[in-house]
Amino acid sequence: MKIYQVEKPLVATHRISGLEHRHLQVVRDGRARAVAVDAVGCTPGDWVICVGSSAARDAAGSKEFPSDLTIVGIIDHWVPEEGA
Amino acid sequence: MKIYQVEKPLVATHRISGLEHRHLQVVRDGRARAVAVDAVGCTPGDWVICVGSSAARDAAGSKEFPSDLTIVGIIDHWVPEEGA
Amino acid sequence: MKIYQVEKPLVATHRISGLEHRHLQVVRDGRARAVAVDAVGCTPGDWVICVGSSAARDAAGSKEFPSDLTIVGIIDHWVPEEGA
Amino acid sequence: MKIYQVEKPLVATHRISGLEHRHLQVVRDGRARAVAVDAVGCTPGDWVICVGSSAARDAAGSKEFPSDLTIVGIIDHWVPEEGA
Amino acid sequence: MKIYQVEKPLVATHRISGLEHRHLQVVRDGRARAVAVDAVGCTPGDWVICVGSSAARDAAGSKEFPSDLTIVGIIDHWVPEEGA
Repeated sequence: MKIYQVEKPLVATHRISGLEHRHLQVVRDGRARAVAVDAVGCTPGDWVICVGSSAARDAAGSKEFPSDLTIVGIIDHWVPEEGA
Repeated sequence: MKIYQVEKPLVATHRISGLEHRHLQVVRDGRARAVAVDAVGCTPGDWVICVGSSAARDAAGSKEFPSDLTIVGIIDHWVPEEGA
Repeated sequence: MKIYQVEKPLVATHRISGLEHRHLQVVRDGRARAVAVDAVGCTPGDWVICVGSSAARDAAGSKEFPSDLTIVGIIDHWVPEEGA
Repeated sequence: MKIYQVEKPLVATHRISGLEHRHLQVVRDGRARAVAVDAVGCTPGDWVICVGSSAARDAAGSKEFPSDLTIVGIIDHWVPEEGA
Repeated sequence: MKIYQVEKPLVATHRISGLEHRHLQVVRDGRARAVAVDAVGCTPGDWVICVGSSAARDAAGSKEFPSDLTIVGIIDHWVPEEGA
């Protein structure tokens, strides 16, 4: 799993039906940004744990959910490293 | 998932039969280019969400579809970062 | 598999139910940090082997466990390379 | 999927039985080289589409085929970018 | 698949039971080191083909084997590139 900070929700009105029913969040790991399915209900600024690979699908709710990155937990306390 | 900009369709006349029935798009993430299966019907210039890993297969239409990167949504508004 | 050094446990009170019942560890590979499910019972400073991909799930205890990085062994003797 | 240029066949007399029955090709993406299972019948110099992840297995012929990178198509026309 | 050079066996006395019955090898790809399950019986210095993703599991002997990198072949002749 990797640690990201939630930046903001992402709106994609035109998307495949399989992606509905879950919020998408733009998450940031230093300079890199990714999009994650929100399985915990987080808010911008939260430091979160994201799971990838095939585990992202079960974590999003079902084996058929088309996610490769899912937010699975909010970290209680996190101090990022300088330069990270 | 990752965010890419659609560059242009890709033509590969000689390909395995499993890849037929779907359009391929060259997508760009900064300097890196990849090829994605188009599951939403996008046009060059669109900013899109692409899913990878095993989720790319279901997203392309079936568990047997040989995709490792599938376009699953078009982002309503996206402002890329400078240098990205 | 990759070699990491265990840094410290990670606490995420608010997480999905599937992630319960296993400890999470922050692990470090040079400058990069990741979060791994601990399947062996390690302590900070240990050099460990972590498995990713879908194998991380079985390694964590079941095919349904939502892990993409699991600690599967503690290395007896390991000397990191300079600069690594 | 990613775009590679075929460099040359790879010979590995001593390999697991599961890898037999398919040719292996050394492929190149800029400076990085990889090995791909050839499912289309390509020749050195061809620009090809390679699929990774679990999709590489089906693309190579069966769910049991131990491939993580399979050549699935030959691109009709491709102009690489400078520096790529 | 990727090409690595075998460096040395890795000893991890304390590991999960699923990882037993197979030797682990430290492999090197330029500056990066990884750990691979040895499915062919190689020796230090060998240039080998390693498969990752879910294919690493079948290649290691069964769908349940917790490997994400398995040595599947020894290359007959390999000349690494300078600087690689």
